[in-house]
Amino acid sequence: MALRNPISQLYKHASRSSIPKAAATSTRHASSKHSQCQLRSMATVVPPVTQDATSSKGPTAMVFMNMGGPSTTDEVGGFLSRLFADADLIPLGRLQSYIGPLISSRRTPKIKRQYAAIGGGSPIRKWSEYQSSEMCKLLDQISPETAPHKPYVAFRYADPLTEEMYTNLLKDGFGGGKGGRAVAFTQYPQYSCSTTGSSLNELWKWRNRLEGKGATGLDPAGSITWSVIDRWPVHPGLVEAFARNVETQLATYPEESRKDVVLLFSAHSLPMSVVNRGDTYPAEVAATVYAVMQRLGFSNPYRLCWQSQVGPSAWLGAQTSDTVQEYVKKGQTDLILIPIAFTSDHIETLFELDQEVIHEAGHPGVKRAESLNDSRVFIEALADVAVNHLRSGESCSRQMGLRCQGCKSERCLEQKKFFVGQENLLSVR
Amino acid sequence: MALRNPISQLYKHASRSSIPKAAATSTRHASSKHSQCQLRSMATVVPPVTQDATSSKGPTAMVFMNMGGPSTTDEVGGFLSRLFADADLIPLGRLQSYIGPLISSRRTPKIKRQYAAIGGGSPIRKWSEYQSSEMCKLLDQISPETAPHKPYVAFRYADPLTEEMYTNLLKDGFGGGKGGRAVAFTQYPQYSCSTTGSSLNELWKWRNRLEGKGATGLDPAGSITWSVIDRWPVHPGLVEAFARNVETQLATYPEESRKDVVLLFSAHSLPMSVVNRGDTYPAEVAATVYAVMQRLGFSNPYRLCWQSQVGPSAWLGAQTSDTVQEYVKKGQTDLILIPIAFTSDHIETLFELDQEVIHEAGHPGVKRAESLNDSRVFIEALADVAVNHLRSGESCSRQMGLRCQGCKSERCLEQKKFFVGQENLLSVR
Repeated sequence: MALRNPISQLYKHASRSSIPKAAATSTRHASSKHSQCQLRSMATVVPPVTQDATSSKGPTAMVFMNMGGPSTTDEVGGFLSRLFADADLIPLGRLQSYIGPLISSRRTPKIKRQYAAIGGGSPIRKWSEYQSSEMCKLLDQISPETAPHKPYVAFRYADPLTEEMYTNLLKDGFGGGKGGRAVAFTQYPQYSCSTTGSSLNELWKWRNRLEGKGATGLDPAGSITWSVIDRWPVHPGLVEAFARNVETQLATYPEESRKDVVLLFSAHSLPMSVVNRGDTYPAEVAATVYAVMQRLGFSNPYRLCWQSQVGPSAWLGAQTSDTVQEYVKKGQTDLILIPIAFTSDHIETLFELDQEVIHEAGHPGVKRAESLNDSRVFIEALADVAVNHLRSGESCSRQMGLRCQGCKSERCLEQKKFFVGQENLLSVR
Repeated sequence: MALRNPISQLYKHASRSSIPKAAATSTRHASSKHSQCQLRSMATVVPPVTQDATSSKGPTAMVFMNMGGPSTTDEVGGFLSRLFADADLIPLGRLQSYIGPLISSRRTPKIKRQYAAIGGGSPIRKWSEYQSSEMCKLLDQISPETAPHKPYVAFRYADPLTEEMYTNLLKDGFGGGKGGRAVAFTQYPQYSCSTTGSSLNELWKWRNRLEGKGATGLDPAGSITWSVIDRWPVHPGLVEAFARNVETQLATYPEESRKDVVLLFSAHSLPMSVVNRGDTYPAEVAATVYAVMQRLGFSNPYRLCWQSQVGPSAWLGAQTSDTVQEYVKKGQTDLILIPIAFTSDHIETLFELDQEVIHEAGHPGVKRAESLNDSRVFIEALADVAVNHLRSGESCSRQMGLRCQGCKSERCLEQKKFFVGQENLLSVR
């Protein structure tokens, strides 16, 4: 297709740059000390993407979708108001637009204190920008036919929001009559309607607003061709990255008691109403856990538990905090918490696990495996997931096309139709 | 150890026999027509086990544990009364011994009608005896060092009960001062405290009653050495057997619409109180489902749903019957139900799925994948699971040693200690 040529021009003369390895590594330690200064400055570095001479299908925009988090405490209010306005995440019924703001403004001071306690903001933007740009550099090497790969981040509740990302895409020469190819790459390895589904609904909304159907009811020629990496719960590289972080933490226990350390995989919980609607997330999280345990040779006993439940309704358990308390009460005080459904540090690891659950356990044997953050194995895994997707010619998984049995959302239906339908465009590229 | 020799003598001069292949195959069709006559007569055939000359550690008793079912409608009353007396399966609190009989007697007429509707009884005894004896024949070939392998069946709620099985073990020369080796092989591929856990509690109880600690508080010399195959949710042979039955059913749909058939994996549900206590079953069922989908190359969209919920309390969903209804209402009428947590036909497949869920769907596109029953791939998988266990020297998985975080059962604690502790005896064999 000729449509992509104008974009290629944009990058043709740009030279490859990279974040110096040393700088990238130094942030790791900065992060564990909750210093955000270095991280924020790093977050602004987005390497230009080079045009590879052998490229036949590039450039390709690689859009990392995630929930995001406030980078400073000043952003907490806006973050929470978006979060409680999202019926895909927190279904509050018809009164969502009234109740949502009430809850979010009431919770803002408390959540501000939590972000203050982890260094003044969430590191998720820094990690997302680092991971996406590092992955794109790898992709340029292993998939020259779709190079250059340009990294974008689209958060659901914090900057850069989907609207901002899409505006940047258009500004950079994708779509808007010039065609081009973009991949929505969820950074939730396990699919939930309340996470990846919500991000896709938002992406679909902004796509329609910014380059969607005109007065004719037909999509204008030269809009972006989208495809979605919607889940990757047992990718071997992901599993390897998790397993290595578990092994590193296991090695800190005395050898004679090491095999009895309990591995507690912890994932964000879901309301039972969402589970019972048919959300695929609990089963996919379980698949990740099982794959990690297989890789570890079932060396230790383990449990999967669920954290961050809020409000009075029923949520999926067992709850992580209860689990730790109950095991400690039973005398099982060697426990490693493993965040298994998020690919970098965030408030749920740095505050909820580290400063609440582990602190309250009051025992040095209760520890946490490091998050994936700048794990090289993980970044290689991202590139492998991406290249497999790019070569598949699929617009999304077959599973994504199927609505949940209890789904009543028309938006969800239309969104799925749109992304599934992109396959026709991909096949002629 | 000299202790096992007396048992070896029992089988030394027995010749190998087998169920004629033709007879075994013919039962498959009999079963699908719900004819129980042939099956019952087959169920009584237990092949004698031969002593292999190269055997160094045999004989080995292979005990298939399962819930069981009434073989005739006359057995329904006794079956239900045992089922509702089991606090591991249906926790009714302090009044279990009063409420249990009330519920079971009230439900008996209805359940009798259900068993009458599937041909007069459950085929589970027939299939268990067939699968265990066929597996033992294979084991004699692939694990001569632990031959002969003698098949036993121990049901939790129907004949042959654990007590009867244990009495037969002793009568056959295992234990009772003569030592010997037995493997408790759960026929629930995914572990739940309410299924495998309950069977192990029962086995431990009868072991203590029939050859347990005497007045000295020490275990008498020459009691049976036990080990447990407590879970095998993603064994490749199990996965292959499930996948082939799915493929067989998929092939009955027209080629052009085949890839859009929804695969509905259905497993028995659990009360949320059990899930929230830390039961590992939901996550292991999910692991099986994911493994089967990997084997199928994610050829179709799918969901995992949960069946057979009873009573007013909250259970894990989505419910299978709701799921089918909702998809049919959405116009998705090509559905294959796949029983994923049970290894042969039983009332939940033959009645609940076939005669209730599928019948009520009222659409020819709603079908069910066959249960594993006499699948040769499955029987080979059983033998492979068993031989891996026998060679491992493990008394049970490391996972089995860990109590659930919310567990309050002293019996469960003691039972786990007993089976984990058998490892010391295994290491000196």
